Amino acid sequence: MFNTESYELGSKRSVIRELFEYGKEYAKIHGSDSLFDFSLGNPSIPAPNCVNEAITEIIRNEPSVLVHGYTSAQGDFSARKAISDSINRRFGANLSPDGIYITCGAAASVAITLKAVCERADDEVMVFAPYFPEYDVFIKNGGAIPVAVAPDENFLPDFEDFEKKLSEKTRAVIINSPVNPSGAVYGEATVKKICAALSKANEKYGRKIIVVCDEPYREIVYDGKTVPYIMNYYDDAVVCYSFSKSLSLPGERIGYIAVGPKCSEERRLYAAICGAGRGMGYVCAPSLMQAVISRCVDAKTDISAYEKNRDLLCGVLESIGYSFVKPDGAFYLMLKSPEDDACAFSERAKKYGLLLVPSDGFGIKGYVRVAFCVDGEMIKKSAAAFAALFDSYKNQCVAQDLPRT
Amino acid sequence: MFNTESYELGSKRSVIRELFEYGKEYAKIHGSDSLFDFSLGNPSIPAPNCVNEAITEIIRNEPSVLVHGYTSAQGDFSARKAISDSINRRFGANLSPDGIYITCGAAASVAITLKAVCERADDEVMVFAPYFPEYDVFIKNGGAIPVAVAPDENFLPDFEDFEKKLSEKTRAVIINSPVNPSGAVYGEATVKKICAALSKANEKYGRKIIVVCDEPYREIVYDGKTVPYIMNYYDDAVVCYSFSKSLSLPGERIGYIAVGPKCSEERRLYAAICGAGRGMGYVCAPSLMQAVISRCVDAKTDISAYEKNRDLLCGVLESIGYSFVKPDGAFYLMLKSPEDDACAFSERAKKYGLLLVPSDGFGIKGYVRVAFCVDGEMIKKSAAAFAALFDSYKNQCVAQDLPRT
Repeated sequence: MFNTESYELGSKRSVIRELFEYGKEYAKIHGSDSLFDFSLGNPSIPAPNCVNEAITEIIRNEPSVLVHGYTSAQGDFSARKAISDSINRRFGANLSPDGIYITCGAAASVAITLKAVCERADDEVMVFAPYFPEYDVFIKNGGAIPVAVAPDENFLPDFEDFEKKLSEKTRAVIINSPVNPSGAVYGEATVKKICAALSKANEKYGRKIIVVCDEPYREIVYDGKTVPYIMNYYDDAVVCYSFSKSLSLPGERIGYIAVGPKCSEERRLYAAICGAGRGMGYVCAPSLMQAVISRCVDAKTDISAYEKNRDLLCGVLESIGYSFVKPDGAFYLMLKSPEDDACAFSERAKKYGLLLVPSDGFGIKGYVRVAFCVDGEMIKKSAAAFAALFDSYKNQCVAQDLPRT
Repeated sequence: MFNTESYELGSKRSVIRELFEYGKEYAKIHGSDSLFDFSLGNPSIPAPNCVNEAITEIIRNEPSVLVHGYTSAQGDFSARKAISDSINRRFGANLSPDGIYITCGAAASVAITLKAVCERADDEVMVFAPYFPEYDVFIKNGGAIPVAVAPDENFLPDFEDFEKKLSEKTRAVIINSPVNPSGAVYGEATVKKICAALSKANEKYGRKIIVVCDEPYREIVYDGKTVPYIMNYYDDAVVCYSFSKSLSLPGERIGYIAVGPKCSEERRLYAAICGAGRGMGYVCAPSLMQAVISRCVDAKTDISAYEKNRDLLCGVLESIGYSFVKPDGAFYLMLKSPEDDACAFSERAKKYGLLLVPSDGFGIKGYVRVAFCVDGEMIKKSAAAFAALFDSYKNQCVAQDLPRT
């Protein structure tokens, strides 16, 4: 009776939501101190002072009709200029404010960009597994087909698989580095290799494959790692960004699309992005937050807590004997499941109060995602539960007090 | 190379934008005092004090991670409850918070709703001319075909045309009362007549046609007029609302979809709406504004200035001899063009510094839209220009100093 695809998208209970509901029940019975919720990617660090100071000052000093009024659809000029200036300063990308389209966050940025670039019914958009599951949703909304590339053992692209899957149907490739859910960071060598493969495919098939870099975690990198800026390596590149993580503003829905100045038919692409946003009911990004961005574009949350958490968590897991790849960025870690079926592992972990998301939804099997944007104390307290969970596999059978599901 | 539809949507210069650019040039030459811009529907009244007080208090007293954090996709429970309580109090609609989906404004509400309800390739969505041009865009994004119903002389639906166009293809009907661009308000008799025709069509064709009431102007009505609440007249009804006008927050993108509790398969419809929003990249509505709505849901801007403006404008136009229908709501008036071609009339008006939007884009011919959400003083000062423009038609020829375009 209603739209089938929309109904299915809206009625499927997500694994994370189910873990959340389970957690609430578990905490009621066992107390919240013995619940260790590693399932949610919600920033746990407050916004930098700049943000709330800017809000207070804007509300106090600027006329209401301007503060809360429409901006142009692509965003207020001064906010766009603050963004392009910041990008140019940091990465030398030579962007103008007219290459920036301010959005309601990274999800909107990616959905709009894919809608703008996909056209043919057989257009394919490639993603590197493990990947953020909403990409499938946005690719389908854009009328295209998702194609997943397998990872290597460090959660970097398996280039053999990548090159095999590049074809005349490839319209775009999504790069999300630092990666949700693995915390991998694509260094310069990886980026160059991706770009070389794309250039070869462009030549071979006579298309211009668009690289869509979804970078909400750009600033959350550890041990001095850096994330190469794609526009310095490849011409047909679009960056989708959100201030959700860098300014801890996930609920405010503020981000942007930056269209590479050297994109083929750059003005047409920008226009298609404006049109795609318009068709999907985006009018302008929230105006007060645009004004905040104008003032706080280079402010950053204090990510040291995430780095401390990563080190804490890796220490706990390593000492127990778990297998995992130490993440270089974001606030996620992929933990290898001791049994093949990650869903069964996640189920068993629940019995110990550990909420871990099975990797199946991220396009690979055999892992769980551990989100460490949590209170550091919880990580410390979770050590015993992680150990007991691990031991339950050593004994080759399930401890008697654990009901099987 | 890019998506054709998106490119076309993004590259077409809007008439209003062109008027805006012309206005800037005109003001440079003739001074801004002789420019009379009636083209924009941007609320000219500040937000009620409640809004900025709420923002300041929330920022001062609530934890940043909560204020700026994700809410659930359908919106924070307390904001949804504030909204459903307010609707129930005012209209007795018996809504629960679970029938409310908080959105990034009315455009998002309508786009999401249409995407959720349309399915078949030949689905039609009816609009009553003159109508807000973005409806065409959102209907097409939903995969359906727009069908416009002609107006009667008071800008109410021509019922003969309406009944003729209802068919087995009709999936939904959009009602936008008070109407942008005519300021007409559909009274109870009109609403009942629409619902009776729909019930007849439902019976005849075995479908449940959805009424989508787009009501950003609900509170902006004059002379004690009221806007009937659709759920009290028709079961399969969805209300799309925005706080853009009632709280003068158009740039903040905050509104909601209310799904009528008596809709057929109400839970499925709500799920389809959640799924449609998800597919289009909406994650949640801006979180700070959701908290503001929780506290200010019943606050209202002082609309007396709009009513004064309406009376001023009608007085000016009447005294000169223009034909128009006095608006009962919103802040728009449709002025009859003295010549058949409203575009030519709008062009000629520009020479007098008057920016008026031709009605062609609103689905009817022969009128211009005059938006009176402006400074009242500007209306007074514009009288001479309106008079001179009118006189230029009396003389049957264009005054010599007016270059033809």
